[in-house]
Amino acid sequence: MIVQSEQVSLKHLLTVEALSDQEVMGLIHRGNAFKKGAIWLPRKKQYFAANLFFENSTRTHKSFEIAEKKLGIDVIDFAAAASSVQKGESLYDTVLTMSAIGVDCVVVRHEDENYYDQLIQSPSIQCSVINGGDGSGQHPTQCLLDLMTVYEEFGTFEGLNVAIIGDITHSRVAKSNMQMLKRLGANVYFSGPRQWYDPTFEVYGTYYPIDELISQMDVLMMLRVQHERHDPDESFSKQEYHNKFGLTIERAKKMKQNAIIMHPAPVNRDVEIADSLVEGIQSRIVSQMSNGVYVRMAILEAILQGKS
Amino acid sequence: MIVQSEQVSLKHLLTVEALSDQEVMGLIHRGNAFKKGAIWLPRKKQYFAANLFFENSTRTHKSFEIAEKKLGIDVIDFAAAASSVQKGESLYDTVLTMSAIGVDCVVVRHEDENYYDQLIQSPSIQCSVINGGDGSGQHPTQCLLDLMTVYEEFGTFEGLNVAIIGDITHSRVAKSNMQMLKRLGANVYFSGPRQWYDPTFEVYGTYYPIDELISQMDVLMMLRVQHERHDPDESFSKQEYHNKFGLTIERAKKMKQNAIIMHPAPVNRDVEIADSLVEGIQSRIVSQMSNGVYVRMAILEAILQGKS
Amino acid sequence: MIVQSEQVSLKHLLTVEALSDQEVMGLIHRGNAFKKGAIWLPRKKQYFAANLFFENSTRTHKSFEIAEKKLGIDVIDFAAAASSVQKGESLYDTVLTMSAIGVDCVVVRHEDENYYDQLIQSPSIQCSVINGGDGSGQHPTQCLLDLMTVYEEFGTFEGLNVAIIGDITHSRVAKSNMQMLKRLGANVYFSGPRQWYDPTFEVYGTYYPIDELISQMDVLMMLRVQHERHDPDESFSKQEYHNKFGLTIERAKKMKQNAIIMHPAPVNRDVEIADSLVEGIQSRIVSQMSNGVYVRMAILEAILQGKS
Repeated sequence: MIVQSEQVSLKHLLTVEALSDQEVMGLIHRGNAFKKGAIWLPRKKQYFAANLFFENSTRTHKSFEIAEKKLGIDVIDFAAAASSVQKGESLYDTVLTMSAIGVDCVVVRHEDENYYDQLIQSPSIQCSVINGGDGSGQHPTQCLLDLMTVYEEFGTFEGLNVAIIGDITHSRVAKSNMQMLKRLGANVYFSGPRQWYDPTFEVYGTYYPIDELISQMDVLMMLRVQHERHDPDESFSKQEYHNKFGLTIERAKKMKQNAIIMHPAPVNRDVEIADSLVEGIQSRIVSQMSNGVYVRMAILEAILQGKS
Repeated sequence: MIVQSEQVSLKHLLTVEALSDQEVMGLIHRGNAFKKGAIWLPRKKQYFAANLFFENSTRTHKSFEIAEKKLGIDVIDFAAAASSVQKGESLYDTVLTMSAIGVDCVVVRHEDENYYDQLIQSPSIQCSVINGGDGSGQHPTQCLLDLMTVYEEFGTFEGLNVAIIGDITHSRVAKSNMQMLKRLGANVYFSGPRQWYDPTFEVYGTYYPIDELISQMDVLMMLRVQHERHDPDESFSKQEYHNKFGLTIERAKKMKQNAIIMHPAPVNRDVEIADSLVEGIQSRIVSQMSNGVYVRMAILEAILQGKS
Repeated sequence: MIVQSEQVSLKHLLTVEALSDQEVMGLIHRGNAFKKGAIWLPRKKQYFAANLFFENSTRTHKSFEIAEKKLGIDVIDFAAAASSVQKGESLYDTVLTMSAIGVDCVVVRHEDENYYDQLIQSPSIQCSVINGGDGSGQHPTQCLLDLMTVYEEFGTFEGLNVAIIGDITHSRVAKSNMQMLKRLGANVYFSGPRQWYDPTFEVYGTYYPIDELISQMDVLMMLRVQHERHDPDESFSKQEYHNKFGLTIERAKKMKQNAIIMHPAPVNRDVEIADSLVEGIQSRIVSQMSNGVYVRMAILEAILQGKS
């Protein structure tokens, strides 16, 4: 499958599945161009973005901030804990305020799945919405940076063997990744604890124990054990998890020579991945973080394009 | 009364009552000019503003931040919870620090009434102070954006009937609004719970039950029920408040056709105002928020004028 | 001792003791030049700095932010309380993230002494580290601004009598100041509570009761009583401390006419220093804060120099 990229223009970015293959490839190519030093053409007006993170975040929040500042967008900081949210103001009224005071684009991370439905249907809210994570729902910019990182490595998705391993049911990005990778031509496999695997995933790939997969994969996507979203009784000891489902040093030795290790981070070192592998030669975890800035520049550009 | 506007220059903005009518009109006209695209003439130096909000705020805080960034002022962020205030540093010493490190203007919201007296009397503090709200005292920029919104709608204050309805005694802006509206020629009326009305207000207007006022008013200024400032025993159920004192859908039908609804926000929907009216055709609540940015640009300009 | 200044280039700034005398004087002279209006030559690229303060701070944090913005560096804000640190992410992984997303320089204040060792040894971390305070360890930029303030006043360190008075053992800056002042030719004296004095300090100077020192000193460096770092049983009443060890109005009368009073601030007024002296004619406490911005500009310039 050869996909032509195109100049992408978006009103919002809520889910990655709603993008066409052409739009996905367009954003990846544009992200790559930004990585190589492309600049956004002179803007006709001053733009404002506000990053509304209602859940803790370092990487997504800060990489949006850098992406915005690299594009010359003025960033309005928002701390939920010091805002009128503390007086009971809703997300809707917070975004309405941002729109009214002239914010062009809000990046929102919120604990409610599909929080964005109400925002984009409001005739009073003018600003675009980029989904920075909704509950256990979606995390489209993480998916796009993962796709950019795979594409940057192999130049294609066609025929690649990609394993998604770990806490799949609680991961915002795993569900998007399995769908998009299959759509773009990759073969998807799953591993990890059986209770974090759902039979509905079989549409996209097949479950195997990690030791049966390790030597065949081009990409190992290790997922974070999200302690904060689990009941204590379904949790493992760190050592136990690492031995049964993690990327140990022994397992890493069986990887294909040009295979890569990915993880959305923050990594629980020595749980999902052995500490010494995290920044090792086959790891692309640092690249994922860098690429996150560039693909978010592409997304912001696609959104502001229509506003200039 | 015809008031000439003038180029306004201010050292501080602490209360709106201290402004002359000419200064008020000058700020309103300049706010309007900014709304229509006026730009601030090239500045001779780099300016710094710091927004010191010791009480939660979204709208006032963020609209100052946008106003500052639209004027090209560099904004120093301040989070009281992560500052030396936690080590017991006083407001005075915090502002002294801001002045010493080169901040030209501080916007302060603080729970102490008249907190600013000590700041403006200090020979060591060089920076200008804009009052973003002092306890139950003043909120001059909210008053100015309200005046700008009324003037934008009607082109005059002379002879307008304006009702201020609700939690008047706890409102920082109601007391300024009643004085300034009367000074500028409007007729002021009051309504809402009797226990939140004070006989001293009679200098500025007369109290009536809302149903006697509704069909005569040009402007309905609904005030927020400030749950956070009330004793539990003086509070109403939401439904009870709405039925007795709020702008219900039935009452709104009796409004003059060109009358407008205002509210400082955040609105308690279905308490002060029926949900569907908040963003309805007669509401100017979204305009108030937009105008807040422009009138604050006018204020900041008037303050930095003297420093260039 | 005549020390030539030079154009300084630094990879990191972790301790002031690691700087040569030439580097110290170079930074002081460059700080002075910035104070007089020098500008940084046009930069070849966009720089990003992130201020990672894990302990409360107003002065150091905000003066770095102003210094960065004066140099045209884009500042990435960081609030530990809203970051992935809350999910257990380590300082190392937080800085690795900052490096990966393109931050050129991090300023870190952290409660762990020598937190920076692990950061500067990592081959994955590209960004420079400026130490904004490590536990009870070092606070090199405070030392440099103190040195700049002394030098600005007297034009030399040679033969100056400098007393360091108060909570010496808990002070991050006192230990650096005693070493650097001696290295640069000053005579160092100590005073304050005996239990906050350590015999190892005798390499640098001698302990005397404050009343024996007061009339001989050119510089009185009063230290903050760090209530937050003390056991309750070793604390004094404020009045008791002030009378025994503080700079009272009576003691100040015995000072040499051109002697100056310094303090890293925040000052506990009427404890270390009588309230009316804090902003008095012999105080350089406000100057110290101003100089903090300029010497930090010199430091940031020295660090980014090598990156352009």
